[in-house]
Amino acid sequence: MSDARWLAAAAALAARARPESRPNPGVGAILVKHGKVIARGWTQPGGRPHAEAVALAAAGEAARGAVLYVTLEPCAHQSARGPACADLVCASGVARVVIGCMDPDPRTCGEGLARIRAAGIEAAYLPSLACARSLSGYLVSRRLGRPEVTLKLALSLDGCMAMANGESQWITGPEARAHTHAMRARADAILVGGGTLRTDNPRLDVRLPGLAARSPERWVLTRGAAPDGWRALPSPEAIGAMEGVQYLFIEGGAVTATAFLAAGLVDRLLLYRAPILVGGRPALGDYGLARLADAHGRWSLTERRRLGSDTLEVYESSLCSPE
Amino acid sequence: MSDARWLAAAAALAARARPESRPNPGVGAILVKHGKVIARGWTQPGGRPHAEAVALAAAGEAARGAVLYVTLEPCAHQSARGPACADLVCASGVARVVIGCMDPDPRTCGEGLARIRAAGIEAAYLPSLACARSLSGYLVSRRLGRPEVTLKLALSLDGCMAMANGESQWITGPEARAHTHAMRARADAILVGGGTLRTDNPRLDVRLPGLAARSPERWVLTRGAAPDGWRALPSPEAIGAMEGVQYLFIEGGAVTATAFLAAGLVDRLLLYRAPILVGGRPALGDYGLARLADAHGRWSLTERRRLGSDTLEVYESSLCSPE
Repeated sequence: MSDARWLAAAAALAARARPESRPNPGVGAILVKHGKVIARGWTQPGGRPHAEAVALAAAGEAARGAVLYVTLEPCAHQSARGPACADLVCASGVARVVIGCMDPDPRTCGEGLARIRAAGIEAAYLPSLACARSLSGYLVSRRLGRPEVTLKLALSLDGCMAMANGESQWITGPEARAHTHAMRARADAILVGGGTLRTDNPRLDVRLPGLAARSPERWVLTRGAAPDGWRALPSPEAIGAMEGVQYLFIEGGAVTATAFLAAGLVDRLLLYRAPILVGGRPALGDYGLARLADAHGRWSLTERRRLGSDTLEVYESSLCSPE
Repeated sequence: MSDARWLAAAAALAARARPESRPNPGVGAILVKHGKVIARGWTQPGGRPHAEAVALAAAGEAARGAVLYVTLEPCAHQSARGPACADLVCASGVARVVIGCMDPDPRTCGEGLARIRAAGIEAAYLPSLACARSLSGYLVSRRLGRPEVTLKLALSLDGCMAMANGESQWITGPEARAHTHAMRARADAILVGGGTLRTDNPRLDVRLPGLAARSPERWVLTRGAAPDGWRALPSPEAIGAMEGVQYLFIEGGAVTATAFLAAGLVDRLLLYRAPILVGGRPALGDYGLARLADAHGRWSLTERRRLGSDTLEVYESSLCSPE
């Protein structure tokens, strides 16, 4: 396999780290020797040990001469909770290191790679979209000082999220709803609007076997007080103050979705589309588009899959890409 | 190739007949001998000669021992404009006949096959969805006494066909618009609403090289008089009186689309979807859906393709399928 594919494999592994690794980034690492994986690791709950430390410990002496693929630059800073990964790598005897993202953390940025090279180990930064995507919440948080925002919409073919009378159960089928629960389980926080909270009183928990404990923090967009078990966000612009939240998942309704789009604070769209026509309530209101031409070029399709009779499409913002 | 695939090939060929074959169905025929196509034909402009007549004439003596694949049952009725195809088949020496659709025309229905079998030729009816689709306008006209109705919508991800201020040029890109022109060229008539006619004054012609002459009849949904060059349809239910129109293509706007859906008179949806969010005017209004559950199971996705950055999806009504 090519370096890029090993990095993509490490990125897939990193999905296991999320979201328990918070506040640390969810990293994946793979040790490869003679074309075979000899050890692997991902960031452990609470953020330690790091992915490289797990993989190197698992390999032990076998790490000598191997190639280490890691989604993020190994950290260069000592912590009370463990040694710097760059130092572990230097001592491990690995022959080569390939990383998919530079770490924007100023304590590491470039220093991790430099320390490994200074030890005489070949080290390459191979920019990987798969790695950047697997770290998107961490990268956006570091760069923009706010969580990465995913807006989920469950829509009919004609873009409705409910009938005119408000009936919204269900637009999509059970497969799409189960997928939404899996996406919730990877978020640090979920947000709905005040109207949705009052009308639907959603639980927003993760109703999947084995994942119930992963139900994220629940937030409501309101200038008022939040009910028990919920936290209040006064405006989209206030997301910078959602401490420790790297992945924010917005579940509606239309007013909230529109407010975040108007603020330019949506990084990803998750569109679950059912093959039905409704002729009811639109999923979005006027978000301040001045001309139709301005709407183009903002969103790139990155994934499409069937979920039962529904279709999931994922779009990434071209304005705030993870890389 | 299997019989079903030869029939699908004949169905693809039949697309060349549309719409000049009107008022006759656009049929395709292929003669196959030793696994190879030795002749082919499709219904000629004005409806004659028929597809089988063209293919058999092209093959001449070579037709002896061949298999004739034809999308529709060969006609059994003599016409002043030519002999019955069933008789031509009987005289041709072909060894076998396979048809994809029975002809609902009472002058032929079953009689064509019977006559061929009476001549000692093996004849099979192998129901073919590809053939039924290629003949959908003819079959719907025969069975329901009205044209087949295709509703085209050009939409944003959030289901808008225009901004709140009415700006609608352009939602989709040039590839999608060119595809729409090709679809127009296959229709007998195009219809828009009175509002769209007044606001956009659309030409609704076919602006593709070599196809300009194929621009279909232009109709407007109005209780009033139609302007020059247009014909007036007072209501969706009046489509039964659109003489000679087998394929009706509806291009909007929202009021017209909603009226046809409310009347249960949409057989196919052509959804051109652009990767943009608009937050503007919805493509559909309330079409009388009583409960959300009633919206499900009505539409089946039959085709999806990328057109530039847009996506075309074709849905067929499960309520009025071509078969």
